[in-house]
Amino acid sequence: MSLDKSAVTSVPIHDLMSRRWSPRAFDVTRQVTRAQLAALLEAARWAPSCNGVEPWRFLIFDRSYDDAGFWRAFECLTDANKRWVKNAPVLILSVASPDPLSGGRPNRYTQHDTGMASMCLVLQAVSLGLIAHQMAGYDVDSIRARFDIPEDCTPMAMIAVGYQADPEILDEEIRKKELASRERKPLIERFFETQWGRSVHL
Amino acid sequence: MSLDKSAVTSVPIHDLMSRRWSPRAFDVTRQVTRAQLAALLEAARWAPSCNGVEPWRFLIFDRSYDDAGFWRAFECLTDANKRWVKNAPVLILSVASPDPLSGGRPNRYTQHDTGMASMCLVLQAVSLGLIAHQMAGYDVDSIRARFDIPEDCTPMAMIAVGYQADPEILDEEIRKKELASRERKPLIERFFETQWGRSVHL
Repeated sequence: MSLDKSAVTSVPIHDLMSRRWSPRAFDVTRQVTRAQLAALLEAARWAPSCNGVEPWRFLIFDRSYDDAGFWRAFECLTDANKRWVKNAPVLILSVASPDPLSGGRPNRYTQHDTGMASMCLVLQAVSLGLIAHQMAGYDVDSIRARFDIPEDCTPMAMIAVGYQADPEILDEEIRKKELASRERKPLIERFFETQWGRSVHL
Repeated sequence: MSLDKSAVTSVPIHDLMSRRWSPRAFDVTRQVTRAQLAALLEAARWAPSCNGVEPWRFLIFDRSYDDAGFWRAFECLTDANKRWVKNAPVLILSVASPDPLSGGRPNRYTQHDTGMASMCLVLQAVSLGLIAHQMAGYDVDSIRARFDIPEDCTPMAMIAVGYQADPEILDEEIRKKELASRERKPLIERFFETQWGRSVHL
């Protein structure tokens, strides 16, 4: 079961990137294996980072490994997200850590680099036939308190990972989102040529 | 010409991610075409973002399109980076923009999401047989002033893109870095199972 919502691009891009999207219909009957999980983490681990400090942490909640732990994380989600994440087998929280650069200099790339590592994790999921959906809709204070996340670290995205299910399992409101076409702003609004605001010429 | 410095992983990861690294030996004789550039930008464009606001901007400096503009950006690099970036055909600056979430809410994901878009751009480069190297080593104030980047936007990575050249073109100090093996911290230092600090069990 997979939904094709490939990106509409002016020139072809790699399959991994064009096929990736953020589905909500998870198959509650299919688990992510430990070997698959290892591949997701290895992909994130090998992401680039400023000065190579790897300023990220990932907290794994796998219901097939620690069911109670999974639900303790699940309870931090917004009600809107709970409606579909209840079927996901794995949640992974990305966290930016203030690891300093060489010489103890402050690192202004911690959130940026955490995003890069998460992106690699998500693309590795796609390559394994899995789906991954990153969320901001959770209670940061609650997740911090429940899982002892240090004050100087910043929880970023809660990432649901699993297998695609038929959108029919979703309630009507969420199913509409699942089936809607993907949209992006025109290239010229985000990509500039030499000068700020000057649209790229392609 | 390509150097194989594939990631050493406990389980296989997708080729795009395992082959990616950040080389310094660029082939000054080979340009990035506009079609290749379009693919890099499309890959970034279709990255995920919180609330779909796409809180990134990319500023392109292509010496085959605007030679003077390229060198004006180049001059903002540190001396250490100038020693190898001088051979790169294209520089791309990623910038985080404070685009608000729906309802005008503040967006705490701007740098995180910009990192995700850059990661897609870099992986697209790998898929095209190009190399890409992200740098923090440039003068942020200077690049902001030269290219009219608004005060509320945050320049993140300067990304050199082009083709791999023989490491022999590099001076000795940089060539050593080019040929050194890639390293990452052990998985258990960055990836936790259910509780902060508890190493993931794989």
